[in-house]
Order: sequence, then structure tokens, then C-alpha cells
Amino acid sequence: MAKKKIGIIGATGYTGSELVRILTNHPDAEISLITSESRAGELFSDVHPFLQGIADQKLVSINQIDDYELDLVFLALPHGVSMDFVKRFKDRSFKIIDLSGDFRLSSREVYEEWYKLNHVHPEGIEKAVFGSPELYFDEIKDANLIANPGCFPTSAILGLAPLLKANLIETDRIIVDSKTGVTGAGIKAKSVNLYSNVNDNFKAYGLKYHRHTIEIQGILDRVSGKETLIQFTPHLLPVDRGILTTIYARPTEKMDKTKLKELYTAFYARAPFVRLRKQEPAIKDVRGTNYCDLYVTYDKRTHMVIIVSVIDNLIKGAAGQAVQNMNIMFGLEQTSGLHLIPLNP
Amino acid sequence: MAKKKIGIIGATGYTGSELVRILTNHPDAEISLITSESRAGELFSDVHPFLQGIADQKLVSINQIDDYELDLVFLALPHGVSMDFVKRFKDRSFKIIDLSGDFRLSSREVYEEWYKLNHVHPEGIEKAVFGSPELYFDEIKDANLIANPGCFPTSAILGLAPLLKANLIETDRIIVDSKTGVTGAGIKAKSVNLYSNVNDNFKAYGLKYHRHTIEIQGILDRVSGKETLIQFTPHLLPVDRGILTTIYARPTEKMDKTKLKELYTAFYARAPFVRLRKQEPAIKDVRGTNYCDLYVTYDKRTHMVIIVSVIDNLIKGAAGQAVQNMNIMFGLEQTSGLHLIPLNP
Amino acid sequence: MAKKKIGIIGATGYTGSELVRILTNHPDAEISLITSESRAGELFSDVHPFLQGIADQKLVSINQIDDYELDLVFLALPHGVSMDFVKRFKDRSFKIIDLSGDFRLSSREVYEEWYKLNHVHPEGIEKAVFGSPELYFDEIKDANLIANPGCFPTSAILGLAPLLKANLIETDRIIVDSKTGVTGAGIKAKSVNLYSNVNDNFKAYGLKYHRHTIEIQGILDRVSGKETLIQFTPHLLPVDRGILTTIYARPTEKMDKTKLKELYTAFYARAPFVRLRKQEPAIKDVRGTNYCDLYVTYDKRTHMVIIVSVIDNLIKGAAGQAVQNMNIMFGLEQTSGLHLIPLNP
Amino acid sequence: MAKKKIGIIGATGYTGSELVRILTNHPDAEISLITSESRAGELFSDVHPFLQGIADQKLVSINQIDDYELDLVFLALPHGVSMDFVKRFKDRSFKIIDLSGDFRLSSREVYEEWYKLNHVHPEGIEKAVFGSPELYFDEIKDANLIANPGCFPTSAILGLAPLLKANLIETDRIIVDSKTGVTGAGIKAKSVNLYSNVNDNFKAYGLKYHRHTIEIQGILDRVSGKETLIQFTPHLLPVDRGILTTIYARPTEKMDKTKLKELYTAFYARAPFVRLRKQEPAIKDVRGTNYCDLYVTYDKRTHMVIIVSVIDNLIKGAAGQAVQNMNIMFGLEQTSGLHLIPLNP
Repeated sequence: MAKKKIGIIGATGYTGSELVRILTNHPDAEISLITSESRAGELFSDVHPFLQGIADQKLVSINQIDDYELDLVFLALPHGVSMDFVKRFKDRSFKIIDLSGDFRLSSREVYEEWYKLNHVHPEGIEKAVFGSPELYFDEIKDANLIANPGCFPTSAILGLAPLLKANLIETDRIIVDSKTGVTGAGIKAKSVNLYSNVNDNFKAYGLKYHRHTIEIQGILDRVSGKETLIQFTPHLLPVDRGILTTIYARPTEKMDKTKLKELYTAFYARAPFVRLRKQEPAIKDVRGTNYCDLYVTYDKRTHMVIIVSVIDNLIKGAAGQAVQNMNIMFGLEQTSGLHLIPLNP
Repeated sequence: MAKKKIGIIGATGYTGSELVRILTNHPDAEISLITSESRAGELFSDVHPFLQGIADQKLVSINQIDDYELDLVFLALPHGVSMDFVKRFKDRSFKIIDLSGDFRLSSREVYEEWYKLNHVHPEGIEKAVFGSPELYFDEIKDANLIANPGCFPTSAILGLAPLLKANLIETDRIIVDSKTGVTGAGIKAKSVNLYSNVNDNFKAYGLKYHRHTIEIQGILDRVSGKETLIQFTPHLLPVDRGILTTIYARPTEKMDKTKLKELYTAFYARAPFVRLRKQEPAIKDVRGTNYCDLYVTYDKRTHMVIIVSVIDNLIKGAAGQAVQNMNIMFGLEQTSGLHLIPLNP
Repeated sequence: MAKKKIGIIGATGYTGSELVRILTNHPDAEISLITSESRAGELFSDVHPFLQGIADQKLVSINQIDDYELDLVFLALPHGVSMDFVKRFKDRSFKIIDLSGDFRLSSREVYEEWYKLNHVHPEGIEKAVFGSPELYFDEIKDANLIANPGCFPTSAILGLAPLLKANLIETDRIIVDSKTGVTGAGIKAKSVNLYSNVNDNFKAYGLKYHRHTIEIQGILDRVSGKETLIQFTPHLLPVDRGILTTIYARPTEKMDKTKLKELYTAFYARAPFVRLRKQEPAIKDVRGTNYCDLYVTYDKRTHMVIIVSVIDNLIKGAAGQAVQNMNIMFGLEQTSGLHLIPLNP
Repeated sequence: MAKKKIGIIGATGYTGSELVRILTNHPDAEISLITSESRAGELFSDVHPFLQGIADQKLVSINQIDDYELDLVFLALPHGVSMDFVKRFKDRSFKIIDLSGDFRLSSREVYEEWYKLNHVHPEGIEKAVFGSPELYFDEIKDANLIANPGCFPTSAILGLAPLLKANLIETDRIIVDSKTGVTGAGIKAKSVNLYSNVNDNFKAYGLKYHRHTIEIQGILDRVSGKETLIQFTPHLLPVDRGILTTIYARPTEKMDKTKLKELYTAFYARAPFVRLRKQEPAIKDVRGTNYCDLYVTYDKRTHMVIIVSVIDNLIKGAAGQAVQNMNIMFGLEQTSGLHLIPLNP
């Protein structure tokens, strides 16, 4: 089979470099095009020097896209910008996987309330499939536009879906306490990701209003068929990559360890990237990979379920899950090009 | 006034070195004795070389304690060991501040259930005052034996006390999600605090069974006059010092920002080490100091209160709070010797 | 004695916040004025929130300086800017300690060659005393303008001065291999101090052309009375604070351990902040203090002397040494306000 | 071609887990056997839980080795232990790659002087080929016993070999200032790799006597055909992986940038893992890969050459170079199984 021809729109950020890192060794796909407006004419490895000798493609302006035959395009762009391109490319033959938040929410209204922006392409919201392969494999298979999930939502949703699908927890007071590495804030230098503001430090941020709150809640509404209420608090870890999410929920009925284990084992029986762990996982256990490691336990004393979920925010939380979606869209093995082994230590 | 004569029992751990660091510059106290069984005969600065030229006292065996006139003794020993010494010293004239967990719980039975140890000195449990100056100032003033609070409990209790005292939150489902620096695990090298197991990493541990759960719950029972149920989860941060605790609770009545602010301001009006912060605090904001910084907010959407509490686990969570208790016991200014300014960055 | 009245020009950087941290607890000085052009009208603790409740002075514009009676002014400004203010204040009655590089070099010509800037106040270069108390105590005592040493130069010069003064090493090929924490690059967010570019990383930079090369060489020329040739390479450590400098030099004559030890002990006999260490020092051994720790050894196999020197770049390498100079200028104890104990861990 | 059957002796350390990580995805080799004495009977992923689902082989005792047909065995054992097994296996048909220091030095006498141990198998020293593919490709091809190079030596030797081979630098005073990540000290918890002793810290260690001094010097003697004298100083970085070595040497003749560039380009023309970099490389540029990145420059002012060399100590400095040697011994492409892309950030 000929290798699929891939375009990557947006080269300077971490999502772009992770896509290139993964696709460079992908047996069934090849990078035909990488665009950048600010660095057009330079090499990809000029922007990311650690890729010297590995990814030396020349960057071109997106305006040259019609010079390329493409099977699929990844949009590695900021939200608010991405929707312009989805609109512009809506009649092209290539498939689109959008890594921004522009097409993940349930409606234009919800988007505009939480993102404080006008949405320029509401039909896209209707058409887009939420790219969580563990939940929506069949829809992804047939999709032309994927809204690739956010990093926090990926960790929270995979942790909660089995319980909510089975209607086993109260939905009005679910606590999602997340801790993320710094790369979640992007590659641009700003006070929040200044080394000395992060190193040997830790803080909560975005309390009550973080946009991923509504993304998590919207998908969990669909999974459970009910209105959920999610209390989501992100925190900033002094690490490069990784999200660990601790989830607290109250069972609606009698619960025990065995029931939990069977539920999760069955739910993820065909999910090659979800690992059910015997002990509490650490974020380095999944670093550099597309895994989501889950640990689920029940506290009899308090009658609460506690779930710990870890991912690499740049891979399962972004580029890796995007490639997984690509594989499904092309009818490839889900794991093609994603046999990544954790870099630990 | 003559300086108070202080003994420090246990020199090799972090608690011992922090006590020395603080007391060395204390205007009203002086270190008369530092004991160590394993390093007796050596200098304190042989054990902690960064104190060369600053704290060069010779370490002696605890068996020589009767050669010293002492006003107060700090026990910087592991739990299970400390109770032996409290028992042994129970008729001495000096006051005792015990930094272990041996005398913090409500009864021998509770201790033995959670610590899996026989308690050799149950009368001490009756006599000991829980050394939280913001809650028990008057009792501390008159105490001869202080059970100095644990690090996680300090951060959790100071965060919750105002709401529980005022009976403003539900008590049966309080979530206490804590994140601690590595020094909480002590100075002894083991797999859990091996550099490469911690660096660029993060994990939850001790789910459901951590001993600080019952310490928090016991004190909050007393503060609220009700039975509380605390879900406590500690996590291990890649930082040296600091605890950040995120607390989730449901108000029992209508709540708003102003009410919260007034409540906390009034409760901590005479607490020089509690700072109510305008933004979410970071652990480096209190590093090297005796402060507990609190941020309290109400989420109308979910009808939940969220509290963020940060301390330096070795200072407000151990040695600093111990010195604060000492000051109160001696009728000194609470802040004497504790005018420590955060080392940030 | 009335407390000395101090002005700090430049509040937003690390040097400014360190000066405030130190002077807040200084028994003989008080901060009368802190200026900031970009943040005038705000509180100092708005700019550095960890100082809430500790340093809440209002920031004013430097144009209001004449409203204040001042005994001494610290200039915590970038090089190139500082010289304007030294010139502007040259006839004022207050003393000046300049923390920039503008007055540290031997001549206007050398400055203009290495800094690629015109010097607007060359008389200042003539007048300024290089503020290294271990070398120039007497000159500092009488100075009105101090050029406070750079951070790398402080660590290198204190390491080499005894050997060069005694004419015991070859001067034409001295290797100074330095490793610094990130705060040396300042508080402004830029690619070089972005968390993920520094964390778990390490690199050399500024090879051959770093400006501190000529500052080191200029002072060592004076100390040795000869022309020295310094090969200086800085590296960037994933730490907040601290410089460790490893120095390699060839003895001009027979050398041994005892001779080295006696030489350094004698040279620093009256230097309260230089600690000669028995083992290789680590940067955390001096963190948060004004110490310079030195370790000196001789390798018989290679006939080379190796010196390891560590300081806290923000304290002995900037604000602390500046306060030490202030103390000397006012006839106070050198150590006044500087009884800082290392924060370790 | 049938996959080569590989045995790994020693499973609990980092070298063992890195070998497994690399060989798991190797197209031409398969792991037949992993031994461990302390953990025999458990799964490899019980020892290294991040490999759950990836490497679940059962560990067996080395005494069962005769039950396996093996083409090659990696010894991932401590020095002093390894030589026993090389001796024991000397008449087996499988090839051996020893990752310890037991067979790297020029003679039994030199080994015993620097390692303070009797060597039990001196014939092995005669037979062993030093596994540096960039220097000894042809010897490796035909070898049955490889002494895989040490981590520091790999970085130092690759940095210096072109200049020494061409006789272009003085050999009596070469400065090798190295900085390593913590994994170099092994996986066993001890004071030196305790998190809080390393984090936000930095120190020199092993001055004058580190064993890699003589390994570097021995190989450089062979490369240059002269007696060299190496001053080697290792330092401990607060990072997991990576070595950066800064080298200082004096040219024996006129030197310039172009000459240097041509020399290194020619020398490494057929070395797929040596990258000559345009700027100073950082250790994260090679993290998780088998690259050695070199930056070479000449300082006209001081007439010195400065070389910066970076590797991942666990890969090019251990397991990766070992697999590269295996590839060569089997006549495979050097890069087989080693198309690793840096994990950055």
C-alpha cells in the first residue's frame, strides 16, 4: 500500500514537533508538507535543532498547500485560528484532524460562552467527531473532520467513562483534580512557564473557569446520558510532560473492588493504549508514549471511588491520539507507528 | 531575660537540621544539647556539612541528657520511638514538643488501629495538646507536652477550620487532595525518594490508608463538633519542600465570595502566620518560612467551595510550628525567631 | 545609631527583590524608597506576591527621588541603563552601589569593545571601586561609588586570588569552567529560560565571548600584577540559584596539599563569608546565603591545581555582596544583616 | 534471516531496562533470556512496572542459561562481578558484550591499580575489543568479546579523537570537564542520588581519582600514539540522563575554524550517530537516542580549542552503543533498531 501523504499545518509548537517525531518512524504514512508562516523557507530542524539530520524538511507557507497531494492534514494551530482553516479547507478531498479546541464542544453557544470568541464555522461543530478512539471508534472510522480531544479531558474522560456509562456514580458532584506538566502551556516563553516560576514550585490555576471543564462535562453528559456537574481544577507541575488526574465520585449503589475491576477490564478490552495498573501509576510510566494508565479503587470507609489516570499530555493528550485517529480513519492498525516505549527514567 | 535552654533529640533528620537552622538565629533561645546515637562524638556540621561554621556543636548520646539544664526539649524522632522518650521524660522539669505522630490522635485505640503499633504511653495522649496555635493557643500556653501537628494535617486543618467551626459545610464528604515535596519522606535514601524516581515525575500514594487521614479527621471532628469524613489523597511532587492542599466541600447554605472572605479574615485576625491571598498561592511563596497561605473561593456553577492551602512542610509543617509553640509556651512573641522571608526563587 | 536610609532603584528584577529580602531584616538600615517606572503606584508585593505582608511599600518613579533623604542607593538596573543614573546622581550626597556591569572594567575602551556600547560616563570608571571585600576592603571603606562584582567573576576571582597574588600559577592558560542557575538570565521570560528548555537539560553558552571573561581577567591582572589569559565557559544548570566554578591551573613550582591549605587559610583569615571546605562543596550548601565555599586540591599525577568555588549568584554574586559593601562603607560589621543560613534542602 | 537470540544478564538496573527497551523494537533480534538472581521468577515488568504489557518476560536465574540457545549475551552487571561471568562463559559459542569496566583498560596492572581489585580473567583483557564503533569498527566486526565503553569516556574520546589522531593538540594537559545525569550512579538508592541531595543542586566529585580518567587516557594514548595526560573532573547534574563534556586543549600549530570543521567532518563521515552541530548542543537534544552531538570551536584570543560533546549516558554511553556493537558483530546495519528520536522536551 502506498504511504499516506500527510500535511502538518503549524510547525513551531510542541504539537507540531511531536507529530513529526511520531510520523517520521510511521510505516504507513509520510510527511509531505509542513507549514509555518513565521519560519517559511527555513528547515524544520532550524526551528527544532534536536531534529537535525532527522527532520530537515523545508517549511512552506500554507498558501502553497495546493501544490501538494494530501490524504490528511493535521492542524497544529491555536484555537480561534484553527476554525478559519477548517472552514477554508471544508471542500478539499483531504481529511482533517484538528488539535485545537475549536470543534470539541457541543454547540456554537457553549463554545462562545466558554471561549469568549465568535465561532466562524458552526457547521464544523455539527460535522466534527470527537476523536476519542476508546469511545467513538466507529464514528472516527467514517469521519472527515476530527476534533482531537484536549489533554485534561482525555485523562478525565477515560477515567470516568466506564462508571458513567454503567450509571454507577452520582453525576452532580464529580471532582476532577488534575496536575499537568508545563508543556501544556505551549512553547512560547511567558511568565507562567519561566523556569524559576515553575521549578521546585507548584500551584493551582484556572479554578472554576478552565475551558476543559466544559469539554469534559459535555462528553460525560453524552457518555452517561445525564447532566453531569464537573468540578475541575488544574495544577501546574514542575515537569515537562505528563498529566495525572485524581478523580473522586460517589457510587450510587453498593460497590467493591472486584466489581470495579471487571467493569474497567470489560470496557477497555479492545483498547490497546489503556493499561489497567495494579499500583498507582506515575506520569513517567507513560512518558513518550500513547498510553493512558488507570488505577481504580474503592474506599469502603468513605463510600467513594477514587480513580488515578495518567497520560503524556503531548502524546495521548495530543499528537499520539491524533495519529491513532489517523490510523483508524485510514483503516490501519490503531497502533501503527505508535509502538512507543516509555522513557523512564 | 536569660535565653531559654533547648535540647534537640535526634540530629540526623531534616526536622533536626531545620530546628537548628531556626534556633541558631533565635533571639530568646539557645541550643544547649543536640543528641544523636549513631553520630555521637561528631559535630552537627559533620552530619549536615552546609552548616560548617554555623552549627558546629558536638553531638552527644541522649544518655547524657542529665548533664544539661534544659527548659524545653524537641523530640525529632520517628513515631514509635518518640513515645518511649516522652514516657522516660515524663517527670522531668523541661517541657516537651514531640514532632512525631505518637500523641496526635484522639485515643490509644485509634492510634493502634492506624499505626499498627502498641502505644507504650497512653497517658501522654490524654495530656498532650495538639500544637496548632491558630486553634489551641490557650491550651498550648499552659501545656507541658505538645503533639506537634503533621505536615498534611496542618495544611488541611487550617484550610477547613473556619468553615467547620461556623458549621457552613457538609461534613460527610470532604475531599482533601494534597501534594507534597520529597522531604516529607525523610532523609534516608530509599526507592521512593531516589532522584530518578521523583524527578520529572508525579504520583499518588497511600490512597485510603495514609495515617494523616485520621489525624485530620480527628481534629476536624473537634473543631466542628460533628463526625466528619475525610477523603485524603497524598501525591509526591518533584520538589524538595512544600505542600499544596486542594480542598473541596459543599456548603450547607447559600454561599458567596464575600461571606467566605469575611469568615476567614475574622477567624485568622490574630494569626500572624496565616496569609489570605488574593490569587492562588504557589508553594515557593512560603518556602523557607512559617507561613500558611490560603486561597478560598466559591463556585456558583457547582455550588462548591474550593480551598487552596500551602505551607513549607519542614517549617510550618514541622520545625517552624514547633518553635512557634515553644514561643507560646514561654510567653514570648509567637513570631520570635520566625521572621523568615520566603526564598523565592 | 539611626538606621541608614536606603533607596533601591529598579524593583522588578531578582536583584531588587533580593535586596529587599535582605534589607527587610537588616538591623542597621531601612528601605526608604523603591522605584519602578513600569509598576509605579503599585505595591512591591504586587510585583513579588510572595512578599505580601512583608514588603508592601509603594513603588514610585525615580523622578521623585529628591523627595527622599537617602544615605545610599543601590542601582538594580541593566547595564547600559545604569551608567545614565550614575552620571545623573554623581553630585548627590548619597553613596551608590551599582549592580550592573557598567563600571567594573579597567577602561572605557575595554568596556566598549566587550559591551558593544558607548560609555556615557567614563569618569565613573575611574572613580568606581570594584566591590570585592576580600580583595579591596580598604578602598570600599572610602568609596562613594561601588561597581558590585558580577556573579561569575565573584566565584572565579575568589577561587584564584590567593594563588595569583602569591605568584604560584602560570597565568597564560587558566581554565574557568562555570555552571550557573537560571536566575542569572534575569526575570524576563525568554526562550533561554523557558522551563522546558532548561529542565532536565544542560548546555554551554557564550563560548569565548561572554563579558564576564574580561571582568575576571581584568581583576586577576591587578591581583597578579601580570597579564593573565582566562578561558571562561559558562553553562546553564537546571537550578534556580547557584554558581559552581571549576578552575584548572598549572603551578609554577613544586606544590602540595599543605602549601595550598596554608595559602588559602591565611589569605581568607579575615573573610567571614569565605568557607574553606573539607570536601567538594555543592551549590545548595550556600543557597540563600552570602557564603563563597572553596575547595582546593592538587593533582600530583598531572601537576595541576583544581579549585571548586560555589556561591549563590543572587546573594554573594549580587545583592548580598552589595549589602556587605554597604556595611563596610558605613563602618558596620561586614556581616550585619547577612547572618543567613543555607536553605538546604 | 532468523532473528538473533539475545540474553541479558542482569535485569534490575538501568542498563538492563534500556537494553530491553531498545531490543523490544529491534527488527533483527529477539530477547530469549533475561536473568536476575534477586528477582528470579518474577516478570521483568514487576521490576520495571512502566513496561507492563510491553516486556512481561519471566526472569530466570543465570544458572539456567544452558537451557537457551543464544547468539549473544549482554552483561549488565557491576564491575568486579562481570569478569567472573566472562571467565565462566569463555568457551561458549555466544558472543559477549560486557557493559562493565572490567575489560576496558590496557592491562591487568592498570586495572588493579585504579579499581583496587584483583582481576580474575586477564586473558579477557587481551582478547576484548574496546567497543567504540567510530574508532574500531573493523575489530568489533570480528570480536567475540566487547568491552563496551564507559559513559564519560564515550563523550570524551569522541570529542578528542580527530584532533589527537591528526596530532594537532598538545597531549600533556588536556582538560576534560564532564557533567552527568544521576542515572550514572545506578538504580540503587543511596545518599548520593537521594532526590533532595541532587535537586536544585550541583557538585563536583571524584576529583583526580575517578576510574574513567584512566579509561579515557588509555584509549587516547592508542589514538594519538603518544602518552597523553588527562585531567578529568566529573560533576553531578540534577537531571536523569545525559552527559555534557567540555574539553580544553592547546593546538600544536596554527588553527582556525575551517580546519577544525573539515577535520571533524572527514573523521566522522561514516559515523551515523555523530552529529556535528552548528550551535552548542544541549543534553536534551540527544535524550533517548544513540547520538553523540559535537560542537568544536577555536578561540583565537587564547589559542585554545574548546569541544562540547553530549550523549545520553544510558544509550550512547551504555545500552545503545552496546546494541550498535551487536549490529556490527552480526553484520547488520549499525543503525538497526536504533532509529531513536530525541524526546525533547
